[in-house]
Amino acid sequence: MRVLVEDIKKRSVAVFEKAGLNTEDAKIITEVLLETEMRGVFTHGFMRLERYVNCIKAGGIKTDGNYKIVTDSPSWASVDGCDNLGIVISYKAMKLAIEKAKATGVGIVNVRGSHHFGAAGYYTSMCADNNMVGMAMSNGDVLIAATGSAERTIGNNPFSYAFPADKYGKVVYDIAMSYTSDRKVVQMDKEGKKLPDGWIIDKNGNPTNDPSEYEKGGTLLPFGGYKGYGMAMMVETLAATLSGAAMTKNVHAWNENPEEGGNVGHFFMALDIEKMGDSASYKKRVDDMIDEIKESKKAPGVEKIFYPGEIEMGKLEKCISEGVVEIAEETMESVERVEKSFGLR
Amino acid sequence: MRVLVEDIKKRSVAVFEKAGLNTEDAKIITEVLLETEMRGVFTHGFMRLERYVNCIKAGGIKTDGNYKIVTDSPSWASVDGCDNLGIVISYKAMKLAIEKAKATGVGIVNVRGSHHFGAAGYYTSMCADNNMVGMAMSNGDVLIAATGSAERTIGNNPFSYAFPADKYGKVVYDIAMSYTSDRKVVQMDKEGKKLPDGWIIDKNGNPTNDPSEYEKGGTLLPFGGYKGYGMAMMVETLAATLSGAAMTKNVHAWNENPEEGGNVGHFFMALDIEKMGDSASYKKRVDDMIDEIKESKKAPGVEKIFYPGEIEMGKLEKCISEGVVEIAEETMESVERVEKSFGLR
Repeated sequence: MRVLVEDIKKRSVAVFEKAGLNTEDAKIITEVLLETEMRGVFTHGFMRLERYVNCIKAGGIKTDGNYKIVTDSPSWASVDGCDNLGIVISYKAMKLAIEKAKATGVGIVNVRGSHHFGAAGYYTSMCADNNMVGMAMSNGDVLIAATGSAERTIGNNPFSYAFPADKYGKVVYDIAMSYTSDRKVVQMDKEGKKLPDGWIIDKNGNPTNDPSEYEKGGTLLPFGGYKGYGMAMMVETLAATLSGAAMTKNVHAWNENPEEGGNVGHFFMALDIEKMGDSASYKKRVDDMIDEIKESKKAPGVEKIFYPGEIEMGKLEKCISEGVVEIAEETMESVERVEKSFGLR
Repeated sequence: MRVLVEDIKKRSVAVFEKAGLNTEDAKIITEVLLETEMRGVFTHGFMRLERYVNCIKAGGIKTDGNYKIVTDSPSWASVDGCDNLGIVISYKAMKLAIEKAKATGVGIVNVRGSHHFGAAGYYTSMCADNNMVGMAMSNGDVLIAATGSAERTIGNNPFSYAFPADKYGKVVYDIAMSYTSDRKVVQMDKEGKKLPDGWIIDKNGNPTNDPSEYEKGGTLLPFGGYKGYGMAMMVETLAATLSGAAMTKNVHAWNENPEEGGNVGHFFMALDIEKMGDSASYKKRVDDMIDEIKESKKAPGVEKIFYPGEIEMGKLEKCISEGVVEIAEETMESVERVEKSFGLR
């Protein structure tokens, strides 16, 4: 359904304040959920609000606003999120990385004691908007099979980078490690479609093109076979091993037990293009690369070649100009449920 | 054929000295080619020696030992490789990143004016050996299709990370951006095999499982579809846009015109685990993660689940303990041709 941007913004801030967040933090999480929703990444938008609030109510997510810089240094820092909302922690950690990059060219921040990451692309976007290259990643619950494994062995870890362009605005790459989402597999099953090779294995670990095998105990595979498995491991170690967060089976990004802290780990990097060179020529060079790719010979049936994040950016701009965002009915119902539980409607 | 390690080492150093490198640089490139060969990555070992020397003879690769730090800062630097051998430049740049990480926790070095990168895993391995996390990447000639494109539009850019473990030694991930190599496609064609979905497109940009289409003008696809395309773009921009190197169609990593400089770009990062935490517990945590993955339920036909770089590390250790390395006959013939051209045999 179509929802006024200003309306959902106010409602979300009110909900998170009622949940115990201070106004600044309530505004941060609202901003991130809203922009993510407007980018069309609805799986990481307001759909998550109820779950976050339930974890807060159960005590697994704290709202005391604590955020501890454990070790600080001119170009890097280690942060303890003190079990507050992962999105709020991540926003603050990336801001810190950006400040460090402004001062020294490079800013790296690793985080432990955090919770569900939200949409990684929001944080890297912050870098692109500051003439920086950004990277953001997080570990999460084990969900995908390592190459050779028949079961869930490593997180479907989010990974994002972003950098600025000139006429193309910015490039924002935001992925998880599975070839595709469970949602897509289930959808293809409903539509009676066959899966391409390499998307899932069945409950015994055999490769299959039959999407119905997923819900019978199958497992998602990493994108690109062992190459994706290795990427998942990179994120796991950069985000969690370095920071001292929980790893693989010990992490609870999306608590089955909402009363437990997740101890999720994140990794943020910002590189200041202006310090390392000249951002105007950098952006021009990015434009040239994208032009070249867009102007290449297209595959049959392809009208347009996209750069990472282009589709989402188009949706975001439309929402901003119209002041309206399309949100799923069930999502708005869940928001209302939460509001009612706080006596807000 | 089986070749004594000490023998090929001496011969390679002699060749590169004859080609004009100073002894230090001749030893560096020999060390990298040798270790790469011993890791079994023969495509980036001595097989490349003749080509490098031909580029040197033609003037596209310089041997003056120049290596210019253009901008220096405590945690990062920009380097101009002055058209010397990419491997020598890369070794020196990663050493610089490691020094910076030792001093400040973080070391980032970007490089322009370089040439063919060699095996990325060598450089990140240097980090793991120093209790650091390493990342290394390079752009290269356009070889793979962007998602939606019917032709070669972006480099098959090498990307590597490495980090130390305790009982598992180190994890070294070293990939290029295509799902598989052209070599493998041609091999499968010879064996009459069908390709899995997503490996190549034919000359018109149509997906195909027929490997014979590759040599009829087909193109390799990025690993994992658009996710791999985005990874290729990340490497392109980190390695080349930031450093001011040539990009996409303008880069010549593997000169058709050996008299031309390549202006290849690289990106190196080193993070000092000891500074950011405690390397002993870091390594223990990596071991635990690998144990957990290795002990998971295996897919049918799988005897062992590997971590990135495990197979190569086994080969390397065997070569070192035996003092012997297996090198392809054609490769040794090409080395001999070069030796003869320098009056060395």
